Amino acid sequence: MSASRDRLPDFEAVRDAAARIAPYARVTPVLRSALLDALVGAELHFKCENLQYGGAFKFRGACNAVWALNDEEAACGVVTHSSGNHGNALALAAATRGIAAHVVVPEGAVRAKLAAIERVGAVLHRCAATQAAREEAAARVQRDTGAVLIHPYANREVMAGQGTAALELLSQAGKLDALITPVGGGGLAAGTAVAAHGLDPALTLYAAEPEGADDTARSLAAGTRVTSLSPETICDGLRALIGERNLEALREHRVEVLRVSDAETIAAMKLLWSELKLLVEVSSATVLAALLKRREVFAGRRIGVVLTGGNVDLDALPW
Amino acid sequence: MSASRDRLPDFEAVRDAAARIAPYARVTPVLRSALLDALVGAELHFKCENLQYGGAFKFRGACNAVWALNDEEAACGVVTHSSGNHGNALALAAATRGIAAHVVVPEGAVRAKLAAIERVGAVLHRCAATQAAREEAAARVQRDTGAVLIHPYANREVMAGQGTAALELLSQAGKLDALITPVGGGGLAAGTAVAAHGLDPALTLYAAEPEGADDTARSLAAGTRVTSLSPETICDGLRALIGERNLEALREHRVEVLRVSDAETIAAMKLLWSELKLLVEVSSATVLAALLKRREVFAGRRIGVVLTGGNVDLDALPW
Repeated sequence: MSASRDRLPDFEAVRDAAARIAPYARVTPVLRSALLDALVGAELHFKCENLQYGGAFKFRGACNAVWALNDEEAACGVVTHSSGNHGNALALAAATRGIAAHVVVPEGAVRAKLAAIERVGAVLHRCAATQAAREEAAARVQRDTGAVLIHPYANREVMAGQGTAALELLSQAGKLDALITPVGGGGLAAGTAVAAHGLDPALTLYAAEPEGADDTARSLAAGTRVTSLSPETICDGLRALIGERNLEALREHRVEVLRVSDAETIAAMKLLWSELKLLVEVSSATVLAALLKRREVFAGRRIGVVLTGGNVDLDALPW
Repeated sequence: MSASRDRLPDFEAVRDAAARIAPYARVTPVLRSALLDALVGAELHFKCENLQYGGAFKFRGACNAVWALNDEEAACGVVTHSSGNHGNALALAAATRGIAAHVVVPEGAVRAKLAAIERVGAVLHRCAATQAAREEAAARVQRDTGAVLIHPYANREVMAGQGTAALELLSQAGKLDALITPVGGGGLAAGTAVAAHGLDPALTLYAAEPEGADDTARSLAAGTRVTSLSPETICDGLRALIGERNLEALREHRVEVLRVSDAETIAAMKLLWSELKLLVEVSSATVLAALLKRREVFAGRRIGVVLTGGNVDLDALPW
């Protein structure tokens, strides 16, 4: 079972996910802004996953993974390690099925996100902020409780669930020329690629990545997964290294990675807040930063833009 | 013409307004929050007019007023005095018809709002921050340019336009027990009352008012319009004294006014931001402050809540 859980989803899996999560997930609105269109020189369609249940697209993947379990698997609950949004999403998803959720959280995670996870009733397990410490703590919880590990981005059902945002966006906005999402671990980027090309193979796909956590750009350039990098970026949601299968999906679907600095991202975040009247978290603003930085790439095209989350600590804004 | 412009609109006028502004205004989404429902103990349906064109419901009224003019009236443009959102809305509305907009703005108006008005191409006329100075400056522009005065809240077509938000909300949310809006000059409160009772005479209507600008509550209690009050509140959009006709509409439709302190409003604003992931301006947060303060009034009912605007100076947040 765990081997099949790591495979890439196909388009059919994304469509199954859409049907599976429909009773629980929100159909989020798509917003426009004349000013942002003018600044980028393109027609931007913002898919507002910050308005998704739990404040991030992550609920889609977590919900699909939770409801894809059979009753026996579900009985002992689920566990994950996550810097915040996936943990919160998994807690919410587990609650929709009435099963236990264990969330391993690294030191330094955003306070507002942890408070939200606890509110939903999940059990928090704290650990050091390294990938190894997270995985070890999650393995311990698995052994102790029998809970099923739902990986934040390498899990097949998680990727399929994340792909449903693109499915929805394309049905709401009509024909688009390109889609752009942020890329961290690559769950959203991979799911989006599968969903988008399932509907329209002509779509061009982009992913925005912080310069200080550009393992995806480096991995694509090197032809092999670069794991030696220590992420340094303000984008707390994009510090994970890209997963092996996620990278494979990005390569297969020819996703172009655009690198942006934290300063560009913070400026873009403020602009998104002012113009869309939406709370958009810093990781999520990388996409607008990339659109503004690479105007020549997007000029005159109809672009779908996934705003991934809105879980922000209002007492610690980055400007 | 100017006399008829001050009459109260009827339900027919609100429906006409809805048809007139349909090509220009956005159908704004209605959002829910399980946490806010739990905190208030009621079922809240948030009508997100902060996502309206221009970032506030004011575009509805301004757009209806601009397009209700005949060609001869429209030729010399429009003028208004406004602490911000109506001025911005009128500038945007004038642009949809390709006519000039003059906006008289008092000293102390929110910077972000003035910048937005200038961006649209309207002419700003600065004046002192008193009602008398505003009216004088607007009269001067009228004389000099022949522009038609579109009053921020006492104008019939403005009131009718503002009422279209309630019309939309009731069609989106289904049957509700009550509606609540903020009240300042009373354009929204009056338009909402006419629209709501036109659709469903059984609806109970509420308006939230800052304690430091509670001329509406006092006027309703006194049975006559109280004009001696000097507003002192952080809610820059609610400092205007209620209009004579607007007050008449509130009395006729038995709108109950609920008073809230600035501290309660600021706390509610932060809560709206965190939970709905939306920028909501401080004036707009009075409604949640009132819902939280008077839980016994709303318990167990289905409430429509108009979030009026999202134009916020991100460098001067009140917490």
